Amino acid sequence: MKKELVKRESQEEDTIIKIDGEVIIGDNKLMMIAGPCSVESEEQVMEIAKQVKASGAKFLRGGAFKPRTSPYDFQGLKEEGLKLLQKAKEKTGLKIVSEIVSIDDIELFDKYVDVIQIGARNMQNFDLLKKVGKLNKPIILKRGLCATIKEWLMAAEYILNEGNKNVILCERGIRTYETATRNTLDLSSIPVIKKLSHLPIIVDPSHAAGQKYLIEPLSKAAIAVGCDGLIIEVHNHPEKALSDGEQSITPKMYEDLCQNIKPIAKVMNKKL
Amino acid sequence: MKKELVKRESQEEDTIIKIDGEVIIGDNKLMMIAGPCSVESEEQVMEIAKQVKASGAKFLRGGAFKPRTSPYDFQGLKEEGLKLLQKAKEKTGLKIVSEIVSIDDIELFDKYVDVIQIGARNMQNFDLLKKVGKLNKPIILKRGLCATIKEWLMAAEYILNEGNKNVILCERGIRTYETATRNTLDLSSIPVIKKLSHLPIIVDPSHAAGQKYLIEPLSKAAIAVGCDGLIIEVHNHPEKALSDGEQSITPKMYEDLCQNIKPIAKVMNKKL
Amino acid sequence: MKKELVKRESQEEDTIIKIDGEVIIGDNKLMMIAGPCSVESEEQVMEIAKQVKASGAKFLRGGAFKPRTSPYDFQGLKEEGLKLLQKAKEKTGLKIVSEIVSIDDIELFDKYVDVIQIGARNMQNFDLLKKVGKLNKPIILKRGLCATIKEWLMAAEYILNEGNKNVILCERGIRTYETATRNTLDLSSIPVIKKLSHLPIIVDPSHAAGQKYLIEPLSKAAIAVGCDGLIIEVHNHPEKALSDGEQSITPKMYEDLCQNIKPIAKVMNKKL
Amino acid sequence: MKKELVKRESQEEDTIIKIDGEVIIGDNKLMMIAGPCSVESEEQVMEIAKQVKASGAKFLRGGAFKPRTSPYDFQGLKEEGLKLLQKAKEKTGLKIVSEIVSIDDIELFDKYVDVIQIGARNMQNFDLLKKVGKLNKPIILKRGLCATIKEWLMAAEYILNEGNKNVILCERGIRTYETATRNTLDLSSIPVIKKLSHLPIIVDPSHAAGQKYLIEPLSKAAIAVGCDGLIIEVHNHPEKALSDGEQSITPKMYEDLCQNIKPIAKVMNKKL
Repeated sequence: MKKELVKRESQEEDTIIKIDGEVIIGDNKLMMIAGPCSVESEEQVMEIAKQVKASGAKFLRGGAFKPRTSPYDFQGLKEEGLKLLQKAKEKTGLKIVSEIVSIDDIELFDKYVDVIQIGARNMQNFDLLKKVGKLNKPIILKRGLCATIKEWLMAAEYILNEGNKNVILCERGIRTYETATRNTLDLSSIPVIKKLSHLPIIVDPSHAAGQKYLIEPLSKAAIAVGCDGLIIEVHNHPEKALSDGEQSITPKMYEDLCQNIKPIAKVMNKKL
Repeated sequence: MKKELVKRESQEEDTIIKIDGEVIIGDNKLMMIAGPCSVESEEQVMEIAKQVKASGAKFLRGGAFKPRTSPYDFQGLKEEGLKLLQKAKEKTGLKIVSEIVSIDDIELFDKYVDVIQIGARNMQNFDLLKKVGKLNKPIILKRGLCATIKEWLMAAEYILNEGNKNVILCERGIRTYETATRNTLDLSSIPVIKKLSHLPIIVDPSHAAGQKYLIEPLSKAAIAVGCDGLIIEVHNHPEKALSDGEQSITPKMYEDLCQNIKPIAKVMNKKL
Repeated sequence: MKKELVKRESQEEDTIIKIDGEVIIGDNKLMMIAGPCSVESEEQVMEIAKQVKASGAKFLRGGAFKPRTSPYDFQGLKEEGLKLLQKAKEKTGLKIVSEIVSIDDIELFDKYVDVIQIGARNMQNFDLLKKVGKLNKPIILKRGLCATIKEWLMAAEYILNEGNKNVILCERGIRTYETATRNTLDLSSIPVIKKLSHLPIIVDPSHAAGQKYLIEPLSKAAIAVGCDGLIIEVHNHPEKALSDGEQSITPKMYEDLCQNIKPIAKVMNKKL
Repeated sequence: MKKELVKRESQEEDTIIKIDGEVIIGDNKLMMIAGPCSVESEEQVMEIAKQVKASGAKFLRGGAFKPRTSPYDFQGLKEEGLKLLQKAKEKTGLKIVSEIVSIDDIELFDKYVDVIQIGARNMQNFDLLKKVGKLNKPIILKRGLCATIKEWLMAAEYILNEGNKNVILCERGIRTYETATRNTLDLSSIPVIKKLSHLPIIVDPSHAAGQKYLIEPLSKAAIAVGCDGLIIEVHNHPEKALSDGEQSITPKMYEDLCQNIKPIAKVMNKKL
């Protein structure tokens, strides 16, 4: 059988990912991504972008095409949303992370976005994986809600197998019986992945926890367990957010979080 | 909020689905689907088709585009596979059920297939759901491996909302901690769905159980709990199958199964 | 390693359990148990006993010592409850099933109860298992909420290993992420157990489903999948029940259920 | 309804537990427990005790009465095991933690053990909870394998309600579908418990992970997320251990672990 490209056996040293020659993740560099669940308006995205940049984020996240449980929920601003993210990039210098949900949008994302996210629901949308595997952009591959670690790595393999080696895994919680949190953040997956694979891995405490007060302690734990970055939902008015308001922290909370994880990042020999 | 089209509140009477004026499911008609996991060769598909037809199946299932965990597993014969299914249809009169995995293949499926299946991994591939929602063909929507009943119904809503009312739900087991079976068949979902929705629902004991000896007892239970049909993997040489050999029963076992479920179907007032 | 006593390898033929020479389960005899979650008063228990007997139950269930999540919930009438069950037995001839929660009560249960139940929470209370293993009474061993089938059988082994061969397994649903039902009834466990073990197995649809309307369809499925009996919560005033009112059916519903499962029992060659 | 004693609403400040006037947990004091899964011999327990003490442990754990899935697995040295732990205490000054499995052993544990552990399988053995609730000793209450946080707190309530306020919760992983680890360590439970309750909470990475290499990273994460202590399985010859050898680290690995968590403990303002 072919040796899987995602495995340590295929590549001993950790993957380091660069954009325009600059390391964005790996080599002790923490990838800090923050921003709203959905892009809602120019004012919203600009304000949040400036604030998370001031706190230390290097990437702005924002959903333009939203995969929602019900067809009647807000589905995102679509291309208009991507253009607003582009504007925010021009103003702040933050690089852009956004989720793709259809192969029809590949060109749009290639144009507007620096790092393409594949969401949990599409982790085994193999058609989409193969298409982004032909691009030259970094891909964040979120773990499916009930994906095993092995299935997750094999999903990444679909991307690497097409030629794109710039895959960043993202642990975002798995579905269990526990209802005190939205999902159960599986922090054990980070050292397990580190053992099996050379790919970098970040953590999304926002979707896992589903509640604001859990974001900072889980972020600290994620850094301490050895992750390579954090993707966090930040909204300037969480109570008015069109999606995921419950779990979105304020820019002020994000500022505190960045300050409070620094000493742990230092202990772990990681740079923000 | 808009009243969801999948709900009993929107349509009191059970949905009955017809092809060319003939009822295929609903109105006490059990939809019997059988065939191999993957279409492998003309000989294979023809032999199985004849045998399952003789036992009472009205639909031939067969995978031509296979969503596989690893990119190095057999990915299906693609269009060639659909053509072989078409040939089997011409020979036997069985209608064809096959799984679609990419929006790029919509026209191909519209041409070759009578009932399009959306697999568990794509249950929340909303892009694909919207596209098949614009067709006029019956759609089998499998439950995602860790989808709640509510999420499953909302996925069906994406299809109905585009105009296609011919949706058949398919319970195929959910992922739990138990490893004695491949997945845990959630037969409670059938009466729950019957209460909440007017849509028909079939059961796939093959993927749920993962082992041959469990297929018949689970099929009986599925009929007794009130389902509207069964989709079962049948292979003429399970030990040589390119996929899912463990859970594929032989044509002879399928013949017995059809005989043995008849008395229960009769008790439940259902026609094969 | 010692060959486990619960395994088919140790005993090929199915275990048949008798009380006073009369078969209560096995040999195609369905064990029908019904009654309230908790014994609440003489009037309550007498009324229910008469009604479920008229419908076909041979065993009266009723909790006297209740294991409750909170210490402030109703904990049962204790010995007084067992005495009321004894009275109902004298009046109706129904045999008594009740749950033991402490080794301190062994003598009490040996005196008042015909079949001792070990609840899901105590499935791996090995101390209790060993103690009831020294008795001569039939033991119903419920599956733990997240017990694997293997662990469940090994728990039964603790009882058999002490000398008591009269163990009846009881599937009552496992804990999963799905919230539409209280637990997920794992009907696959019945044929799996039948393959691995000679022990009889009954189904408790009440605790699994948690809602009245699901009890009858799940009972039918349980019979069709091959179980050896049903334990069902019946209350004369479910809306006033001190525990489990939501899932308790009325005596009238139990009467209908008994009528409606008969044709399926007949197909399965089982006697009520 | 009575206000639950475990809740913050009943006691705003964190519970601090002392033995002989000395704080063992709470007030920024980390409770460090280490030792073998099972007490196997005097030599074994003495050697491990000395080594973990040298590394910084203040408590020696060791199983004397072992709850094992199969009755044919090693069941522990029983009272002899407790006596060996007592000897180790005399030699090293380490306090003793051991698991109780039967109410019959209450006096024995009261005599030989400093902190009594209730294992995951007995979390809802309410009879045992009530009995230890009448003692004056600290109790470690492990989370059940599929217990919700609410059920876990209500189990602790059974102890507090009897008068014993010295309860230490212990997160040890929950059962999920993932098989890469023995269980899924739910580190979110620590901040959730801290919000709901005043009780201290420790983490057992050994049982959760099931593999040596995961113990240190999970220990770091546990400290960073805010836990009050660690209970870790250490064996001088893991490859020969009578139980849990896979997950037991060596004394040398424990020494490294203690060194490596110190800087994170310091950041979190905790003292070892």
